[in-house]
Amino acid sequence: MDATSYRQACFKILRPYRVNMAGEWPSRLFDYFLIILILANVLALMLETVDSIASQWATALFTFELASVIFFTLEYVARVWVSPEMTDYDNDALSDWQIRWRYMRSPMAIIDLLAILPFFLSLVVTMDLRMLRLFRLTRMVKLGRYSQSMHTLMTVLRNEARTLLAAVSVLFIVMVFAATGIYYIERDVQPEVFSSIPAALWWSLVTLTTVGYGDVVPVSPLGRMFGGLITLLGVGLYALPAGILSSSFTAQLQRRRDRFRECVESAIADGHISDHESNHLEKVRDLLDLDEEEAEMIVKLLRHHHEGQRTKQEASTPDQQ
Amino acid sequence: MDATSYRQACFKILRPYRVNMAGEWPSRLFDYFLIILILANVLALMLETVDSIASQWATALFTFELASVIFFTLEYVARVWVSPEMTDYDNDALSDWQIRWRYMRSPMAIIDLLAILPFFLSLVVTMDLRMLRLFRLTRMVKLGRYSQSMHTLMTVLRNEARTLLAAVSVLFIVMVFAATGIYYIERDVQPEVFSSIPAALWWSLVTLTTVGYGDVVPVSPLGRMFGGLITLLGVGLYALPAGILSSSFTAQLQRRRDRFRECVESAIADGHISDHESNHLEKVRDLLDLDEEEAEMIVKLLRHHHEGQRTKQEASTPDQQ
Amino acid sequence: MDATSYRQACFKILRPYRVNMAGEWPSRLFDYFLIILILANVLALMLETVDSIASQWATALFTFELASVIFFTLEYVARVWVSPEMTDYDNDALSDWQIRWRYMRSPMAIIDLLAILPFFLSLVVTMDLRMLRLFRLTRMVKLGRYSQSMHTLMTVLRNEARTLLAAVSVLFIVMVFAATGIYYIERDVQPEVFSSIPAALWWSLVTLTTVGYGDVVPVSPLGRMFGGLITLLGVGLYALPAGILSSSFTAQLQRRRDRFRECVESAIADGHISDHESNHLEKVRDLLDLDEEEAEMIVKLLRHHHEGQRTKQEASTPDQQ
Amino acid sequence: MDATSYRQACFKILRPYRVNMAGEWPSRLFDYFLIILILANVLALMLETVDSIASQWATALFTFELASVIFFTLEYVARVWVSPEMTDYDNDALSDWQIRWRYMRSPMAIIDLLAILPFFLSLVVTMDLRMLRLFRLTRMVKLGRYSQSMHTLMTVLRNEARTLLAAVSVLFIVMVFAATGIYYIERDVQPEVFSSIPAALWWSLVTLTTVGYGDVVPVSPLGRMFGGLITLLGVGLYALPAGILSSSFTAQLQRRRDRFRECVESAIADGHISDHESNHLEKVRDLLDLDEEEAEMIVKLLRHHHEGQRTKQEASTPDQQ
Repeated sequence: MDATSYRQACFKILRPYRVNMAGEWPSRLFDYFLIILILANVLALMLETVDSIASQWATALFTFELASVIFFTLEYVARVWVSPEMTDYDNDALSDWQIRWRYMRSPMAIIDLLAILPFFLSLVVTMDLRMLRLFRLTRMVKLGRYSQSMHTLMTVLRNEARTLLAAVSVLFIVMVFAATGIYYIERDVQPEVFSSIPAALWWSLVTLTTVGYGDVVPVSPLGRMFGGLITLLGVGLYALPAGILSSSFTAQLQRRRDRFRECVESAIADGHISDHESNHLEKVRDLLDLDEEEAEMIVKLLRHHHEGQRTKQEASTPDQQ
Repeated sequence: MDATSYRQACFKILRPYRVNMAGEWPSRLFDYFLIILILANVLALMLETVDSIASQWATALFTFELASVIFFTLEYVARVWVSPEMTDYDNDALSDWQIRWRYMRSPMAIIDLLAILPFFLSLVVTMDLRMLRLFRLTRMVKLGRYSQSMHTLMTVLRNEARTLLAAVSVLFIVMVFAATGIYYIERDVQPEVFSSIPAALWWSLVTLTTVGYGDVVPVSPLGRMFGGLITLLGVGLYALPAGILSSSFTAQLQRRRDRFRECVESAIADGHISDHESNHLEKVRDLLDLDEEEAEMIVKLLRHHHEGQRTKQEASTPDQQ
Repeated sequence: MDATSYRQACFKILRPYRVNMAGEWPSRLFDYFLIILILANVLALMLETVDSIASQWATALFTFELASVIFFTLEYVARVWVSPEMTDYDNDALSDWQIRWRYMRSPMAIIDLLAILPFFLSLVVTMDLRMLRLFRLTRMVKLGRYSQSMHTLMTVLRNEARTLLAAVSVLFIVMVFAATGIYYIERDVQPEVFSSIPAALWWSLVTLTTVGYGDVVPVSPLGRMFGGLITLLGVGLYALPAGILSSSFTAQLQRRRDRFRECVESAIADGHISDHESNHLEKVRDLLDLDEEEAEMIVKLLRHHHEGQRTKQEASTPDQQ
Repeated sequence: MDATSYRQACFKILRPYRVNMAGEWPSRLFDYFLIILILANVLALMLETVDSIASQWATALFTFELASVIFFTLEYVARVWVSPEMTDYDNDALSDWQIRWRYMRSPMAIIDLLAILPFFLSLVVTMDLRMLRLFRLTRMVKLGRYSQSMHTLMTVLRNEARTLLAAVSVLFIVMVFAATGIYYIERDVQPEVFSSIPAALWWSLVTLTTVGYGDVVPVSPLGRMFGGLITLLGVGLYALPAGILSSSFTAQLQRRRDRFRECVESAIADGHISDHESNHLEKVRDLLDLDEEEAEMIVKLLRHHHEGQRTKQEASTPDQQ
């Protein structure tokens, strides 16, 4: 077994497990191990800040941190090493090291690096470790690699980023208006609470997002009327992102359905769906994460449509044959 | 009247009432009685914990509990006994007792058992009754049996479980980031409140879900700015499940509509809808829980489409016959 | 001018104004007057409870109430009198008084009656007026008559009533579970706050609906963990009604679009849309409350489709003529 | 270079940057500068109210305000001057000054004027400056010019204004009912808090919008039961605007997709899409802000459909040629 076979075997274990891949239990096991390790790291990070635990379990926590960093470092090196095995891009024209360098600049690889780098930096540089510790949280982001649904979520959020930003801008404008208004109305009644517009911003933010801590509340009748109006506006503004995302999820599903329909139309063009075509459609369906029941319905409807047209054709052409 | 007829009659009463089933008022009455009994049980469970009521009505509450358990036990035994009457699965190859054993392992039967078992266990085993009492709450779940809409809800929640889990994961990651951030910002100002990251998690959870109790609130300007950013993120994260479920409900409705369209296309293929086909379509419509008005519209549109094609056909074929 | 003409003229003023009805300004004016009068009545009802206002303006408020009741009584009598003019039902077989009696039993007429009856009852019967005053609030419901959109809202809410009820049931079940759980967890730490399950219900309701007053809050670490889980569940449960209503609004719009498409297909069947048909489509569009732009798009797409089929037909039939 | 060329160049810089416009970096730079200047103005407005900053930086803040007003004044004059270059309306029949006068009456120009006018008024008239300062916030609204998505949001909000108003009306009616109910239930227990119905309105508003400050909370068992019911109603009412907006966003997207489909059908009518048509479709796609992937899918599906029909045609016509 040569280096390439080793690299290939290693790649198969490292890449995230996908449904419908047979004989891949080492990959699956490795995934679960990584997920548990990351969650344990986050837990350790949180427990370290509890005084009683930090003093009692200091050595155990440090040992665990050390072991984790070593493991994540090995994982990072392995991922860089096997990156030429990835078939996501066409790698033909590039040497192995060029591919590795490109991989190292990918967002996922940078996150992997950020999750381990602070530890090594803290060994070299003499500075406050606290801020660096926060970077250990980036390990959590690595979890995203393992969920197809997280991928869908991220796509929707990215697609709607501009519209969501516009909604946040509207929220921001209303918030500044609300803060300015309540400041001028309430500053004489509660001068310490609504001492300035920035201070009033805290109220308008907490109110418009319907969090409503209750630490800052208008008390004058006029302030309550104004606050009430702002709160009602908040209901509408709150509904905006829900509406935007809802429409986006619907559109995504529609698009995946359309893509499947396109494939079925291609397959059915010659009048029937062969076994080979049927297998292909099943693969497409799985890739698009479509319901089996739904896919079947699409095939049925298109077949009906097609047969309807065939019948007509035959009715109009018999004597021409 | 032999045993089988008794069993059939019993089954007809026990099975949940469905719309469009004529002459089924005993089934309906039994359903209402069960629903009221379950709700009364939940009420009794809650009132037992009110000291003044518990001391005054102790005997009445115990008698009611005893009567309920006896009734639910009889109901459970009856349901197991009549289970061979169920036509949900093909039961041909199995003996009556095999069917009963399979029924007893179904989730609904286990819930029924859990709702009565604790009482009998408490008679046998000498242990703290408190935890067992909680199991009486499972009786509430039995209510789900009686609502078609609850079934739809559960289907949607099950279908979207993975996406919802991803949304919760994003929420969880943001929550940990928020807790870590606010801990480092506020721990010097409010050392007892933000004493550790786990303690700060309470704030980030209460804030991101927009509950906002107000028992833990950032007070420093930097803490409020950070808290504000987190709150704004919360709005978006809150909109995610709304968007996911909204898209899923829309897709479900679309699918039921497509399934009905498929049936209409089958029926209309020969050019007209016979009385028999019309009856069948009405049954399908009822089963799919579609609006009458909507169903009529689908039939109309497809008929138009079909007639349009027939006209063309006739126009192009007359002299060829 | 005879009685019938009077009745007709009166009816034209009383019925709610609809868009596209020419020469109906008296009807419109009357609508606005009624809306303002109802809002003024609600305002008066609220101001009466402010001690300082009630003592100072007692006579003015009573005079206004008296005038309003007289006006609403006249309006009620007039509505009953003109009810035979309504063309909503086929009234051919009924005498005028039979129609009036049927109108008096309609929900809108009963609400109108409830809004005035308490005043007259209080003159006759000697009893506490307070509860009766609440009935004056029903006048607000009369407002619903004047909004097409309110009608749409009510249709959506009625259509989804069963599904919304199921969502509320799920919420209720989770609420009871949460209350029971937090009661057993927190009752030793905060015995006065979580004194019984009914008392704990207040917490679980306020938390699951994300209102979060903060008057009842878990303080023990276990209680906070349990509370956190419940809060997260609340996010999902909260998203349910949003999803249900969103899907229902989308379906309603789709249905109205389909109905318009059906009308266009009928009109276009003979190959072109005549002026008469165009007028009819415009009326339908207005009735269905569809966007002009959207309607135009539907017509365009169907025309394209139709022309495409005509071209083919002509291509395949020329030499047969 | 004559006056018209100057005007044209100036117009190119002033108009908001749009994607796909080559060689427009001065326009883009100017946009970014304006956005930053506006945000800085809002920040300055807020910081002025912080006492410590206001006293220390008084001169700097005034200088910045003066410079901003001068710049915005020049911008306003320039926009009025170049308005005849705008091609939004057909300006053929109007003189340059007529066009300018029409532009000055447009909402955007009035907002621009309102953002600078107060400063000049304060120089002339001797009155309290405070209220006028609030008008400086209108500068924020100018930001809306620069976001396509904001435009989409505003269209959706305008389209659904009537339905949203109906939802707010329902909320208002429930709110008054809730306030009246809680007033009669709680006024004896907490006479200072629920002193009158207007005071109780604050509670019902804060509760129904799920803000839940916690400053006004029912304490009696009956009050809590009533409050709980109202809160549950609030969940449904809160879901209404989310549902309305969600459906509207979906409809908007659908409409843009339909418009694109219409264009593709026009282009494909002669059997193939020429290069010229392809360019045109790309422009339409960009204008409608459609996803490239989605547009491609629409073209593919329609091509399939068209080819399917061509095949049939050819099958039925060969021997007739």
